[in-house]
Amino acid sequence: MELEHEPLEQLRNAIANSDAQAVDVCLENLSPAESSHAVVNLSEGDQTRLLKLLSDEDAAEIVETLPEAHAAQLLEQMSPGDAAAIVSELGSDDQADMMIRLSDAGAEAILAEMKPADAAETRRLMQYSPETAGGLMVTEYLAYVENLRCEDVVNDMRRNAERYRDFDVQYAYVVSKAGHLRGVLRLRDLLLALSTTRIDEVMLAKPKSVEVDTPLEELERFFDHHQWLGVPVVEANGYLVGIVKRVNVEEAAEERSSRHFLKFMGIMGGEELRTMPLRLRSFRRLSWLSINIVLNIVAASVIAMHQDTLSSVIALAVFLPIISDMSGCSGNQAVAVSMRELSLGLIKPREFWRVFSKEAAVGTINGVVLGLLLGLVAFAWKGNVVLGAVVAIALAMNTLLAAVIGGTVPMLLRGLGQDPALASGPILTTITDMCGFLLVLSLASYCLPWLTV
Amino acid sequence: MELEHEPLEQLRNAIANSDAQAVDVCLENLSPAESSHAVVNLSEGDQTRLLKLLSDEDAAEIVETLPEAHAAQLLEQMSPGDAAAIVSELGSDDQADMMIRLSDAGAEAILAEMKPADAAETRRLMQYSPETAGGLMVTEYLAYVENLRCEDVVNDMRRNAERYRDFDVQYAYVVSKAGHLRGVLRLRDLLLALSTTRIDEVMLAKPKSVEVDTPLEELERFFDHHQWLGVPVVEANGYLVGIVKRVNVEEAAEERSSRHFLKFMGIMGGEELRTMPLRLRSFRRLSWLSINIVLNIVAASVIAMHQDTLSSVIALAVFLPIISDMSGCSGNQAVAVSMRELSLGLIKPREFWRVFSKEAAVGTINGVVLGLLLGLVAFAWKGNVVLGAVVAIALAMNTLLAAVIGGTVPMLLRGLGQDPALASGPILTTITDMCGFLLVLSLASYCLPWLTV
Repeated sequence: MELEHEPLEQLRNAIANSDAQAVDVCLENLSPAESSHAVVNLSEGDQTRLLKLLSDEDAAEIVETLPEAHAAQLLEQMSPGDAAAIVSELGSDDQADMMIRLSDAGAEAILAEMKPADAAETRRLMQYSPETAGGLMVTEYLAYVENLRCEDVVNDMRRNAERYRDFDVQYAYVVSKAGHLRGVLRLRDLLLALSTTRIDEVMLAKPKSVEVDTPLEELERFFDHHQWLGVPVVEANGYLVGIVKRVNVEEAAEERSSRHFLKFMGIMGGEELRTMPLRLRSFRRLSWLSINIVLNIVAASVIAMHQDTLSSVIALAVFLPIISDMSGCSGNQAVAVSMRELSLGLIKPREFWRVFSKEAAVGTINGVVLGLLLGLVAFAWKGNVVLGAVVAIALAMNTLLAAVIGGTVPMLLRGLGQDPALASGPILTTITDMCGFLLVLSLASYCLPWLTV
Repeated sequence: MELEHEPLEQLRNAIANSDAQAVDVCLENLSPAESSHAVVNLSEGDQTRLLKLLSDEDAAEIVETLPEAHAAQLLEQMSPGDAAAIVSELGSDDQADMMIRLSDAGAEAILAEMKPADAAETRRLMQYSPETAGGLMVTEYLAYVENLRCEDVVNDMRRNAERYRDFDVQYAYVVSKAGHLRGVLRLRDLLLALSTTRIDEVMLAKPKSVEVDTPLEELERFFDHHQWLGVPVVEANGYLVGIVKRVNVEEAAEERSSRHFLKFMGIMGGEELRTMPLRLRSFRRLSWLSINIVLNIVAASVIAMHQDTLSSVIALAVFLPIISDMSGCSGNQAVAVSMRELSLGLIKPREFWRVFSKEAAVGTINGVVLGLLLGLVAFAWKGNVVLGAVVAIALAMNTLLAAVIGGTVPMLLRGLGQDPALASGPILTTITDMCGFLLVLSLASYCLPWLTV
């Protein structure tokens, strides 16, 4: 079915022949999507051989396009020296991100092989949490001391054109001698100013900046309000340490959304790719499933305790999985809305009661509608009004409960500093399953005389 | 619990007094996150009054920070004239996005109130699908005809500095007289060139560009490989029509991820915010739930058909919801990995058998482990080896089935041009529920003599 195996074969052959030029040609001929697809489909050995055949710069470019989990795995398999050469070519933000994903030993081995100054810089960046301004910033930026003249800056840019080539030079930053942020210098202002003007006369003074520990949500809001491409990052004392670019914030937000989705669906421990070893994939998935099966058994024990009722009215067994599944669906909708609103900053963990009442309203309406629907089906099937009523009431009440729990649990988890994506699902389904089973079976045991006619 | 109601109160008062200045002061004092949070928490009437009190430009800025679903709703409530004034101030990409979200009548009314040229431009942008280069591009860019000199360009920039203020001027584009893309002019090259040089001597010739119908996935890959801030968008004949910025691509990818999550969790018809009317929220959620309840009833009918077996071995009723839920969990993991790999471009719909075999391997291991676990619990509970075996075999086989279906259904849906986020879940759970129930109950009916000892 893989129609595309020809370029992949060519790449394999070029690697097998250690033909660096042929490898270059292969990768050039592939579209970006095809080349990334081809690389992950090589054997592990071929992937590391490929990186060694490429120049460090080209290898770094390949590493940057691979999913991070995959790239980290690949770097660990290389010799620390080879890996260090590639890591040194990564952008400063990617460097720290990549090192954090490596094992401690792997990261240390690579850092030991890097130039001391580069390694120190990477270590410094690794200290910031990934979803803060410090973790997202780059350190490739231009900064000039405030007493320079425009011509000095232009001359410096001209002299170092080659070195600044990879910087997104759009703004330069103006700092005090001690390194504190003073202003922003726009290239076009520099372009239009007289060459002997001091840069602090042309700069935009008192520029907005963010502190290193500003969280991702706040950065998103910041860039929503300010149509800028980047913002300087400062220490608490105003010392300039980097630039957060809008694009990195968007990228981090995208990663967070996918991670939420993956976690909620039970993919833990970082993203899973089908190119990873079977044992790892199976183990990670099982670690989640085995928690769930225990919770499921706990919830189902409610049924075990009501076996007598169930054996008197065996029809109830048909409705137990329906009520469990439907409550899960209703609860998941509320979880999704809460997680979305939390990440948009539209609700805060402390607005518990507002979400509670909003969900209670939706849950009541939906519970009544779904309850009536299922109750009618039960009545139509067995011709027993009481059976219909028991099923209807149980589903209605449990839908209300699911909406309220689904809406509020992510907020409580967030308020407690926990990750709502990971735990909301299991908490929700365990509670709603137990309550659902309990509602059906205890209502039924109360109404037993009318159910067994 | 809303500790923050004070600024909200101030804003409400300022609106009630129609005090434009006080409104400005209120919004200025709020952090971006706080102001967005405050606006959505105003009554609907206050929100439209607020937008009318602000200048069109400031109102457009507020509208851009609101979630799109909310902003569209708000614009529909205003008079078309007021809405048109605000829409005209939005960026070209936001304009089309916003209009597409409005009802057809609402969009037409607003377009009718816009300046004819602006309306024509917006209509043109509305024709492109949202997740293509055409849908994501902006039309604010600088283009100069190839025979101009550097000084002409600098003079034009100087003259129109005010008008270009909102453009991200970093590159200018060089076109033929007929408007075909010829090159890219970097500001710094302009800065360093002699003023009488022709721009086509300084420009980067034969620049990379993308066609209007390039899909989002390919754009993501493009920007993964090219560390650029934007890329020109051309018609098939090379005519320059806009610029896709990296940041818009990242933004669209983020939106797609959240939409996947929301859809998978049963939030259809665009995102739901708790500030929306109860009736709409309830109706949208119900439209999803009512499909699910029908599918659930269909799946549970398998149980109904095996009531005799069930009433002979009532303990089985305890395991039915567990098998249903656990298969759902296993299947969801596979769905998540497939959806992630699809959006990363790491798998293509035609690689069906590769995914099938990868999931079959994980599903087999996990099925055996989970089956043994549940089988042991069943045996420990009832002391019946055959009951343990029935439960174990059913869960093992169903876990395998769930992994395979979960992994491949999103690919099939994508291959058929359908949205995997919406339908994968219901298809998965309906099939695995039916098969799970069937496995447990038919195995049990086969083994009935040993189960009822």
